[in-house]
Amino acid sequence: MSIIGKKGVVVRQIPRAASSDIDALARSGVATVHEAQGRKGLLDPAIRPIQQDCGIAGNAVTVLVAPGDNWMFHVAVELCQPGDVLVVAPTSPCSDGYFGDLLATSLQSRGVRGLVADLGVRDTRTLRAMGFAVWSRAVYAQGTVKETLGSVNVPLVCAGQPIWPGDVIVADDDGVVVVARREAASVAEKAQQREALEESKRDRMAAGELGLDIYQMRPRLAEKGLRYVDTLEQLEE
Amino acid sequence: MSIIGKKGVVVRQIPRAASSDIDALARSGVATVHEAQGRKGLLDPAIRPIQQDCGIAGNAVTVLVAPGDNWMFHVAVELCQPGDVLVVAPTSPCSDGYFGDLLATSLQSRGVRGLVADLGVRDTRTLRAMGFAVWSRAVYAQGTVKETLGSVNVPLVCAGQPIWPGDVIVADDDGVVVVARREAASVAEKAQQREALEESKRDRMAAGELGLDIYQMRPRLAEKGLRYVDTLEQLEE
Amino acid sequence: MSIIGKKGVVVRQIPRAASSDIDALARSGVATVHEAQGRKGLLDPAIRPIQQDCGIAGNAVTVLVAPGDNWMFHVAVELCQPGDVLVVAPTSPCSDGYFGDLLATSLQSRGVRGLVADLGVRDTRTLRAMGFAVWSRAVYAQGTVKETLGSVNVPLVCAGQPIWPGDVIVADDDGVVVVARREAASVAEKAQQREALEESKRDRMAAGELGLDIYQMRPRLAEKGLRYVDTLEQLEE
Amino acid sequence: MSIIGKKGVVVRQIPRAASSDIDALARSGVATVHEAQGRKGLLDPAIRPIQQDCGIAGNAVTVLVAPGDNWMFHVAVELCQPGDVLVVAPTSPCSDGYFGDLLATSLQSRGVRGLVADLGVRDTRTLRAMGFAVWSRAVYAQGTVKETLGSVNVPLVCAGQPIWPGDVIVADDDGVVVVARREAASVAEKAQQREALEESKRDRMAAGELGLDIYQMRPRLAEKGLRYVDTLEQLEE
Amino acid sequence: MSIIGKKGVVVRQIPRAASSDIDALARSGVATVHEAQGRKGLLDPAIRPIQQDCGIAGNAVTVLVAPGDNWMFHVAVELCQPGDVLVVAPTSPCSDGYFGDLLATSLQSRGVRGLVADLGVRDTRTLRAMGFAVWSRAVYAQGTVKETLGSVNVPLVCAGQPIWPGDVIVADDDGVVVVARREAASVAEKAQQREALEESKRDRMAAGELGLDIYQMRPRLAEKGLRYVDTLEQLEE
Amino acid sequence: MSIIGKKGVVVRQIPRAASSDIDALARSGVATVHEAQGRKGLLDPAIRPIQQDCGIAGNAVTVLVAPGDNWMFHVAVELCQPGDVLVVAPTSPCSDGYFGDLLATSLQSRGVRGLVADLGVRDTRTLRAMGFAVWSRAVYAQGTVKETLGSVNVPLVCAGQPIWPGDVIVADDDGVVVVARREAASVAEKAQQREALEESKRDRMAAGELGLDIYQMRPRLAEKGLRYVDTLEQLEE
Repeated sequence: MSIIGKKGVVVRQIPRAASSDIDALARSGVATVHEAQGRKGLLDPAIRPIQQDCGIAGNAVTVLVAPGDNWMFHVAVELCQPGDVLVVAPTSPCSDGYFGDLLATSLQSRGVRGLVADLGVRDTRTLRAMGFAVWSRAVYAQGTVKETLGSVNVPLVCAGQPIWPGDVIVADDDGVVVVARREAASVAEKAQQREALEESKRDRMAAGELGLDIYQMRPRLAEKGLRYVDTLEQLEE
Repeated sequence: MSIIGKKGVVVRQIPRAASSDIDALARSGVATVHEAQGRKGLLDPAIRPIQQDCGIAGNAVTVLVAPGDNWMFHVAVELCQPGDVLVVAPTSPCSDGYFGDLLATSLQSRGVRGLVADLGVRDTRTLRAMGFAVWSRAVYAQGTVKETLGSVNVPLVCAGQPIWPGDVIVADDDGVVVVARREAASVAEKAQQREALEESKRDRMAAGELGLDIYQMRPRLAEKGLRYVDTLEQLEE
Repeated sequence: MSIIGKKGVVVRQIPRAASSDIDALARSGVATVHEAQGRKGLLDPAIRPIQQDCGIAGNAVTVLVAPGDNWMFHVAVELCQPGDVLVVAPTSPCSDGYFGDLLATSLQSRGVRGLVADLGVRDTRTLRAMGFAVWSRAVYAQGTVKETLGSVNVPLVCAGQPIWPGDVIVADDDGVVVVARREAASVAEKAQQREALEESKRDRMAAGELGLDIYQMRPRLAEKGLRYVDTLEQLEE
Repeated sequence: MSIIGKKGVVVRQIPRAASSDIDALARSGVATVHEAQGRKGLLDPAIRPIQQDCGIAGNAVTVLVAPGDNWMFHVAVELCQPGDVLVVAPTSPCSDGYFGDLLATSLQSRGVRGLVADLGVRDTRTLRAMGFAVWSRAVYAQGTVKETLGSVNVPLVCAGQPIWPGDVIVADDDGVVVVARREAASVAEKAQQREALEESKRDRMAAGELGLDIYQMRPRLAEKGLRYVDTLEQLEE
Repeated sequence: MSIIGKKGVVVRQIPRAASSDIDALARSGVATVHEAQGRKGLLDPAIRPIQQDCGIAGNAVTVLVAPGDNWMFHVAVELCQPGDVLVVAPTSPCSDGYFGDLLATSLQSRGVRGLVADLGVRDTRTLRAMGFAVWSRAVYAQGTVKETLGSVNVPLVCAGQPIWPGDVIVADDDGVVVVARREAASVAEKAQQREALEESKRDRMAAGELGLDIYQMRPRLAEKGLRYVDTLEQLEE
Repeated sequence: MSIIGKKGVVVRQIPRAASSDIDALARSGVATVHEAQGRKGLLDPAIRPIQQDCGIAGNAVTVLVAPGDNWMFHVAVELCQPGDVLVVAPTSPCSDGYFGDLLATSLQSRGVRGLVADLGVRDTRTLRAMGFAVWSRAVYAQGTVKETLGSVNVPLVCAGQPIWPGDVIVADDDGVVVVARREAASVAEKAQQREALEESKRDRMAAGELGLDIYQMRPRLAEKGLRYVDTLEQLEE
């Protein structure tokens, strides 16, 4: 437990989830995956995408950085593989612009799918043009230095969620959710089942059937004492 | 007055405004309607659209929900008619993701034009793809339960504004404004007059004429003591 | 110094930077310009664009306004020239919708390139359709009055940065930075040098070379004590 | 309904609750009163006291003010009676310092018990020294003008709650709650019953008895599936 | 102008205001001084005192610091004189705990009256026990480093206000206001006149006289169209 | 790792730190402990005390709760021992008033020293009168229900920090820091050494000696290029 957020270390090898599970989780999306794994793992909603209508999933390469210092990003690049997602947390809250198009170029050349960062980013227009996906706490051009060590591939807390290197990160327009690596396969499967179930309900609802009837809610609502009246005036009596 | 925010009741029938007035208000848009009705009725600017370049208007079907509980959405669907807008407020501040694409499918099948909600929503990418318009306080995938009663079609306060079922909701990129149902016709007319007036001024301004002259502001500015100097240096003397 | 934020005065003539320098700064963009001038001049990141993928630069025409009062905008229009950017700050924090499409029409007819405002704006959909660029603290339809004097073309503090009339404003998706007029040429040149340097590095990074090697970071990281291990388990020992 | 937030009017006579009910509500305090009336009527928690360990209750004299304009405070003073509480809301969000020791002196001379204001106040040190109780959104010295009409004694929405003149305001260190005037007597009674009930439980808990047993929670927890283990290690198996 | 926020320099000698003026400004307090100098100079209300019922004034010794780096505090101490107030701004927003009891001891030994800082502080309990007055943006124990140069006694922008070394800082429970050094004497005098005026009004108000009558507001309210009715019911007609 | 935030379980026995170490950590206080353990473990500064000038330390009994549901507090009480501190985190952000004087009475009867909660509390005046120490995200009277299971004594993330049951919580006016149980003794010792060191420096500083000299900063400042000038005018040349 005491290795969460440990400073000054780099872990070279991390376990990774099966790419088929990762791709399945990406297709399901954040809201469905969150439900499928029992409503856990959501990052703080302050982490927002810089692009629209984009969803990804990948293995977390974790980066712990000092406030206003992006040195560890460079250390992390070397350890990335195709299909990874960089997950970055500062040791103290900071919205400086740690990340821009140069680092994105470097990560993209290694097949990294995106960045989830509890800090600020910049060059957002270029990042969108490059197709490099980013979720961050802020957009801010403020520059950073390269003076203080952090860590790469240690477990850390990012935007309120504990994340282990190799966990699966799913990110889309709704935000970001983390899936424990060992649970990736089972969550992917549950998510697909959930989608199938939702699909059938979506069809019935599109045809005008009510959730009240599909889910048989009426008896329980009555039991809880829900009272129907015809007009507002009846309430005032 | 004591029926504002009353819990545990559903009102089946609500009055609605004339669709011609509603459509006229939609065309005028939030800023113009707000001005036309004497600068009242604006919801808190924290309520933001999930889509861009979209404006709607419709009759409010109001929904009061418990924090983290979206049960009442299902109760509300049954009471919606084409041209309605769902207006939802929690009894205690909450940003959970109450609303997603399944409920949107259900509402869309009944002709509902959109959702204005002082809480969180999810499935935003799908909602945009469906063309279901949403204004909300947050985007957050956090799931909700179905345990606690709220109300449908009682008057409530949503994002700072009191709203009666059947009031007209106008929403666009500038935010959301509510128009009292009985004032819908007169406000729609005033809004159109205002637009006509603005149109003529827009033409003059596009041609280079100054607001200073169009509105004859110079004498009043002088009277208030506005002082012109040629250069900054003159101020420092 | 005591003329910063002085009320009730209008300065007719202001110095302006060379248009070639302004255009060069626009091409470099906010993040590069900020770095090129020694990391200063960034406005608060709460000032956000209402449009995406748009960058401009121009001479600041400064406007000081009373809270909830947009009268001085009209006074400012007359003093604008092609290539200017309106920079507006309130004397007390306010998010009302000071600015909409009418004023934008007037400014656009004089060749003004955009607005940077530490307050709210409205008619955002129309502003985007017009192609009039805006950076603001809020989008809010709340109307303003025309009762109280402010100033035009006095130095002021906007979103945390002191700005003199005639300073160069650079704004894009990353935010807004101000460049002192007298430094415009040298900053533009340094920004271009920086871009050239970055370009060569971008090519190397795109080819897979690491920042660790390009910037020769490894010795200094080792010197600071960065420790590499092969697996997480080794940390726990 | 359309009189909520109506501008430019002053209502001279308002109904008031019985002083015995008001005093009883003050003794019960905000949390108990809120529970006793079915968990409604709480103002936004951003409204905080400027003093500590102080609780009051009184009849609401409502004041609607323009942003940055405190003129209507003076109009309201004349209509106050001993035991009243001034409740003030702006027509657009504003944190300026509307209220200071002079107005407090005037109100105190008429027996007003305090101020609840969704805006800023100043002279807070003097206000505490005077013993004039204040709950506000902000402390800010920024001055206001006297140019624009608002209203006195119209119903309004203050910090998210609809308030009618004559409603009972209860305020203490936990915040502010409004009780509908017609419900004041019954809520006061329910609050006292609740207190009596809590008192007996407090004694049992102080003696070491558990809420689990007092409220007989164990069977229902078991039924919901709560699982006890002896050590954390058992969870990891 | 380009020396505002200049980095890497220390100015040894600064002009200071007369101590009699400073003491007079302290006695008047923030709200009165702000009014007396034409409603300018207020720092952002997010800057709050860590102690209650305390007011000071003093000459600004300005300190510009890098984010998360408190090195320049030590450089500043040497340049402080009895009656000074340290005014600190970061070059990028930061809430780390830059300042604690050790630095306060050092400053107190030189007669410094307090600290106004647009960042975080710590050891607040000890600071209160020492009687060293502090106004800050945050209370946060996060430590800082000593790696990067800032400046001492250059003009800077602190919490939205431009401040020159030697300006007079007035701080109390209402916040912080800056008075230009050259205007200290005249503002002190105007503040005293204002207080005298207020004193006479306070006496009249304490005796029950209304502001409506003291300031002869009734005719102007009538002229603006303020409408009195006897009861709320009359409004609904 | 997958047991962090696990729902629906209660762990009966947790390890605890030595009371002598806990008491030593309490005496050192948050800022010193944070430094002594290498600047880690600080909770988000939004967690603030409801009382002033109070510091405690104790073993964490952790409680995971559903939004708006305080049921698990009652389950936790039974597992508390003298010297414990309750640490509570919601599974989704929520500021409702989960905790009041009844629960505090129950905890106090078991010797619990305080509460650290990433949510809202109420009855704050009574809590202060009882001497029960509380650090929370909000003060809000909003009531909660008892419907949904959470957990007791599972590891969780509270206000950004991972906390294991039995870790030592140190809380005072500066905020809250967590110390891993196994590191409690060594951190307590380092904190005391740090204090001793600081004490000697405090004496020298109180005597007027400068940090510049005590820490021998002058050569390094010169090396970094810090430039001294006599007057501001010299900078402008």
